Amino acid sequence: MLETVDLSKELDKATYDEWFPKLQDNLRVLQREAFEAGMTTLIVLEGWDAAGKGDAVMKLVDKLDPRGFRVDPPAPPSEDEKMRPFLWRFWVKLPPYGAIGIFDRSWYGRVTVERMEGMLQPRQWQQAYQEINQFERQLSDDGQVIIKLFLHISKKEQAKRFKQMEKDPAESWKVTKEDWKHHKQYDDYLRVNEEMLERTSSSYAPWTIVEATDRRYRRVKIFQTVIQAMQAGLERKKFLDARRAEEKEAFKKGLKNGNEQVLPLDVMPSILDRVDTSLTYDPEAYKKDLAKLQVRMRELEFECFKHRLPVVIGYEGWDAAGKGGNIKRVTQTLDPRGYNVVPIAAPKGDEATHHYLWRFWRHIPKAGHITIFDRTWYGRVLVERVEGFTAKSDWSRAFQEINEFEQSLVNWGAVVLKFWIHISKEEQLRRFEERQVTEYKQYKITEEDWRNREKWDAYKTALTDVFERTSTSYAPWTIVEGNDKLYARIKTLKTIIGAIEGKIGGKK
Amino acid sequence: MLETVDLSKELDKATYDEWFPKLQDNLRVLQREAFEAGMTTLIVLEGWDAAGKGDAVMKLVDKLDPRGFRVDPPAPPSEDEKMRPFLWRFWVKLPPYGAIGIFDRSWYGRVTVERMEGMLQPRQWQQAYQEINQFERQLSDDGQVIIKLFLHISKKEQAKRFKQMEKDPAESWKVTKEDWKHHKQYDDYLRVNEEMLERTSSSYAPWTIVEATDRRYRRVKIFQTVIQAMQAGLERKKFLDARRAEEKEAFKKGLKNGNEQVLPLDVMPSILDRVDTSLTYDPEAYKKDLAKLQVRMRELEFECFKHRLPVVIGYEGWDAAGKGGNIKRVTQTLDPRGYNVVPIAAPKGDEATHHYLWRFWRHIPKAGHITIFDRTWYGRVLVERVEGFTAKSDWSRAFQEINEFEQSLVNWGAVVLKFWIHISKEEQLRRFEERQVTEYKQYKITEEDWRNREKWDAYKTALTDVFERTSTSYAPWTIVEGNDKLYARIKTLKTIIGAIEGKIGGKK
Repeated sequence: MLETVDLSKELDKATYDEWFPKLQDNLRVLQREAFEAGMTTLIVLEGWDAAGKGDAVMKLVDKLDPRGFRVDPPAPPSEDEKMRPFLWRFWVKLPPYGAIGIFDRSWYGRVTVERMEGMLQPRQWQQAYQEINQFERQLSDDGQVIIKLFLHISKKEQAKRFKQMEKDPAESWKVTKEDWKHHKQYDDYLRVNEEMLERTSSSYAPWTIVEATDRRYRRVKIFQTVIQAMQAGLERKKFLDARRAEEKEAFKKGLKNGNEQVLPLDVMPSILDRVDTSLTYDPEAYKKDLAKLQVRMRELEFECFKHRLPVVIGYEGWDAAGKGGNIKRVTQTLDPRGYNVVPIAAPKGDEATHHYLWRFWRHIPKAGHITIFDRTWYGRVLVERVEGFTAKSDWSRAFQEINEFEQSLVNWGAVVLKFWIHISKEEQLRRFEERQVTEYKQYKITEEDWRNREKWDAYKTALTDVFERTSTSYAPWTIVEGNDKLYARIKTLKTIIGAIEGKIGGKK
Repeated sequence: MLETVDLSKELDKATYDEWFPKLQDNLRVLQREAFEAGMTTLIVLEGWDAAGKGDAVMKLVDKLDPRGFRVDPPAPPSEDEKMRPFLWRFWVKLPPYGAIGIFDRSWYGRVTVERMEGMLQPRQWQQAYQEINQFERQLSDDGQVIIKLFLHISKKEQAKRFKQMEKDPAESWKVTKEDWKHHKQYDDYLRVNEEMLERTSSSYAPWTIVEATDRRYRRVKIFQTVIQAMQAGLERKKFLDARRAEEKEAFKKGLKNGNEQVLPLDVMPSILDRVDTSLTYDPEAYKKDLAKLQVRMRELEFECFKHRLPVVIGYEGWDAAGKGGNIKRVTQTLDPRGYNVVPIAAPKGDEATHHYLWRFWRHIPKAGHITIFDRTWYGRVLVERVEGFTAKSDWSRAFQEINEFEQSLVNWGAVVLKFWIHISKEEQLRRFEERQVTEYKQYKITEEDWRNREKWDAYKTALTDVFERTSTSYAPWTIVEGNDKLYARIKTLKTIIGAIEGKIGGKK
């Protein structure tokens, strides 16, 4: 790949002076169009040190509306970031819908410099390749545009630039020992860079190699690549949006699934009907056992911290299934500095202007910590599907995305657990009615709960898909018999304790 | 995944008798609609022995138009098939556009039974996972629908069925020792099947688990899954076709690439301008060296056969670059049973009614053989792009598909070489004129050649992308200086010989 690139390309000043201002104007117009279309643009700048990435950033943002872009400058991962999945520090910096995000150095550091410097096991950078490709595919499927530029100069040219910079008092600080060390390893880096270009140049996020010797040529090529990709992206977004609207419309009319022509097989006996809702826990034994388990849980919280083991727990369940009380029992004795409970409601604010997984990415704990999600990313394939908030082509893609997300957490080393707290329809009715007559519980019951209850069967259909498609070996579902809250609490605590003990090896 | 499935599901006879004929009618109508839309449907049946795959095939095709489907029955790979890439025997059996292909057992044998029986290295089934996902994604991107059904029964149910079959004289032959052996390994296979379902359930080709205990339930679920997937597929196809048409229309109008607003950077000096077209080979030395190289080539043909080394060589180049004569020199001394030259023209007949890579898949040699393509799969990103035969969203995806294709050949063990025979524009003109005045060469020069020549710059742009994006470490491009035909012939021969020797280890 790189050896076929003609690094002698250059552009004369007259052509440049005529064209470059036009390109800057074009980009400004596109920024506005992308904003209006809600299309996010990600520009990734990689390439050799001193190849002109900084100059590219300066020129790109020069005429843009500063409210509509963000630049992520190069920096090694901080101590806090090192304790997260490697993509985490980029997840949290993704721009909102409609904006332009510029990454000067990016997630590709994982498979280049971090690999070369021996900071990773081979397994880790191999997995990084897979996760990078999945990450970019997910963003592209979301309608975002990913433009990846590799700025290429020869080893000789790099040496020349370093020396020039060293002579300039204003620039000499920029050339470090590290830079010269990398320069000496140019050929090794060349090989690693080529592998990166080969393994991550996809149809949805292709690399463009920029001949970066000549400043004018380089700038024009960067601008033209960005402009063409944004133009194509806007057309694609228009198409995707039209399809979404059509699907949602069809859903409203009840036509889409051809429901009238289809036997409702999925609401027939399913795994949920086999749940033994008669299970109970003796209240006396409960008191004793709960206390023991909570002590153990507290010990394990510290063990997790010591072993730097991250734990991610998701709670789902019918309304009034007792999720809140269950979570309370898990966390009751824990040190609040070691865990976090994240309640999930309908997305709003920043959450609504990012990829639907973004609000979960943000809350991924540091290694050694525990995060409990009260409702989870499964909302995508439960409430959003059942209510028709999300088009079918989007939610049906989500099973794969969710599996990839959970796999990436497990790759990172996390324990991932998912609970479905199950109660019978009758038990739910009993609890709803109780809530209505008990004053201090009234806030807990709303019109929406009653509406959801009417959709019990539609949720059951959706749940069957969820269990079939996302109960994986690395992140299995646990269905918790919830008619008796005591039983449910003991079961989740035991499951969590067992999973953590399984990971750190030590049973008590 | 599998443990959450409720295998006790059943359907009463009255409901079945009312619904099943309606479903069969629906499928027949959809077959017609798919045919008219040119949408291919692939139905993959996997699952436990005796789970009802045979019955499913019978029922599926029962009312269909026999001209519009093909069934691929289960069979272990033949001796001939074992000498090809593992997907090859499925590539060649893919149905044409608009038809339905039913695979009773499929490419998933690679990651289940072949893996379990210890027929593969771990590396091989790991790569198989990657290639299966890529294969299915490529077909889906082509507008085809992939429906994957896993027929699930319990170990106990399987034993019951085997015993019943053994009692029936008409069926007893179907139960083999192998079947009972696999039955004993049920739990191991369960694990392997679950891994398969997890790793290959994608948004474009999801698995559906079919509760297969009850015959009626099983049939209805299979039919409804197929029907819903085909309906969704038809809508998707409509969208894809509309986008293609729009892109081609825009291309015709010359609007699409915004060419009028873009500096033609790619036709500026490129790697092709650095090709030293002045290189020549001394005619006397040529005679001697050619003879020696051809002898060596002949020896290596036999070595390839002995080592079961497959060799795939692609030739591209400007019109009149001398591809034919060059290929002639490579094969002149070879044993015709060991090699094959495949000339590629515009796709017609079967070639035009399959995925564009299909006609190359078919011609992949057996291990130990050499296949030379005179023009290649790069037509997708050269002539089809330049002439606007293929929509931009399709050809821009092809770089990735081509890299995956070549990577799969290399994974299989092949030597993959690609030659671009390069001549200068002046040299081409000289040769065209010579052809016109030399009677026995006149057939070689057509109006089309002159038209292509006018598009020299557009081809150069396309070629720059080709070299940048598909010259990989595993399948590099070799640019051959072709103004002197003697020089070009020696260079290709030496390159081929070097690559084969590099693989089999032995230099002479």
